[in-house]
Amino acid sequence: MSTAEDMTGEDMPWGEVAPEAARKLLVAAVEAFAERGYHATTTRDIAGRAGMSPAALYIHYKTKEELLHRISRIGHDRALEVLSAASARGTTPGERLAAAVSSFVRWHAGRHNTARVVQYELDALSEEHRTEIVELRRRSDAVVREILHDGVAAGEFDVPDVPGTTLAVLSLCIDVARWFNTGGTRTPEEVGDLYADLVLRMVSART
Amino acid sequence: MSTAEDMTGEDMPWGEVAPEAARKLLVAAVEAFAERGYHATTTRDIAGRAGMSPAALYIHYKTKEELLHRISRIGHDRALEVLSAASARGTTPGERLAAAVSSFVRWHAGRHNTARVVQYELDALSEEHRTEIVELRRRSDAVVREILHDGVAAGEFDVPDVPGTTLAVLSLCIDVARWFNTGGTRTPEEVGDLYADLVLRMVSART
Repeated sequence: MSTAEDMTGEDMPWGEVAPEAARKLLVAAVEAFAERGYHATTTRDIAGRAGMSPAALYIHYKTKEELLHRISRIGHDRALEVLSAASARGTTPGERLAAAVSSFVRWHAGRHNTARVVQYELDALSEEHRTEIVELRRRSDAVVREILHDGVAAGEFDVPDVPGTTLAVLSLCIDVARWFNTGGTRTPEEVGDLYADLVLRMVSART
Repeated sequence: MSTAEDMTGEDMPWGEVAPEAARKLLVAAVEAFAERGYHATTTRDIAGRAGMSPAALYIHYKTKEELLHRISRIGHDRALEVLSAASARGTTPGERLAAAVSSFVRWHAGRHNTARVVQYELDALSEEHRTEIVELRRRSDAVVREILHDGVAAGEFDVPDVPGTTLAVLSLCIDVARWFNTGGTRTPEEVGDLYADLVLRMVSART
């Protein structure tokens, strides 16, 4: 599974995690959580997948929740980065929206295991950590909402319900992580292009 | 949780399951799987939630997978029914598409626990059962694809990629089960209406 994720061309998805042992444990945790769910996974399972002892795991992570929090934090940081960088490309609201959607889709297709864990296990975070992650999600929302507002203000988009449409656009991209299959017929790039077109239609973009 | 689901006005969601004890166990299994995931739930947990003994559970269900299969089967049957009935309402492709989307969204919002279990635990089904469920999903796909084809043939829709757009429309509706919150500001009906409008825009429907 980590192989399939690595094949998407993302440079070192967990590269910021050091030392090597801490990184390996994180990759093992993503795989285990994606496969069996957070609650069915033990720290012993994760250590075993990483070829380490439970004692070695505790040097790096005190609890299973700490691993989930680290994954969620990095996952959300990266997703927000991808979205923000894309929305700054292009000059018109239409170009920015297309870039944001296609990048966000590619991220969710290419990193679907991470995205599933990050999206489906929010409730397993401690209250403090959940609050932190919800704030990051608000910032992703704000990126899309701002593009929609700009498009409406410029007379380029017709969007009667900006918050609702923002929610729908992000939801469409996020759900790619559920159905995307690396063995399927569409590449992440093809899905990204298709979805950019569908979203421009949603906002009745004048091109 | 079952209370929130019952409040959506669906008549007896598991009404076809008899006797009463088998129905109670199914409701308890949906709650447990939605909360903790399939793999983290034991048949003992499910029996406990239903106020029964593990021995009483085995009278009705031989394995945990049998419970998941029953939930998936009924959930997919109902979703397909809702979609097919709605798509037969209205006369033009635009009316049929709007009815199908708003009904499918209302189902996923109102029955979000069931929908989450049904959507996220597919991999936990036995191969035979998964094949059966995949066939039901193909039939849901076919309902939407047919409306899109009819709309294109009638010159009412502009859809360059019918299979891709079918996938996106269903995905948008299904992901409502992930984010919908009974304590949130939008009712299932409001989300249904918003999404019907967004999907008509996706297909560039001429109204």
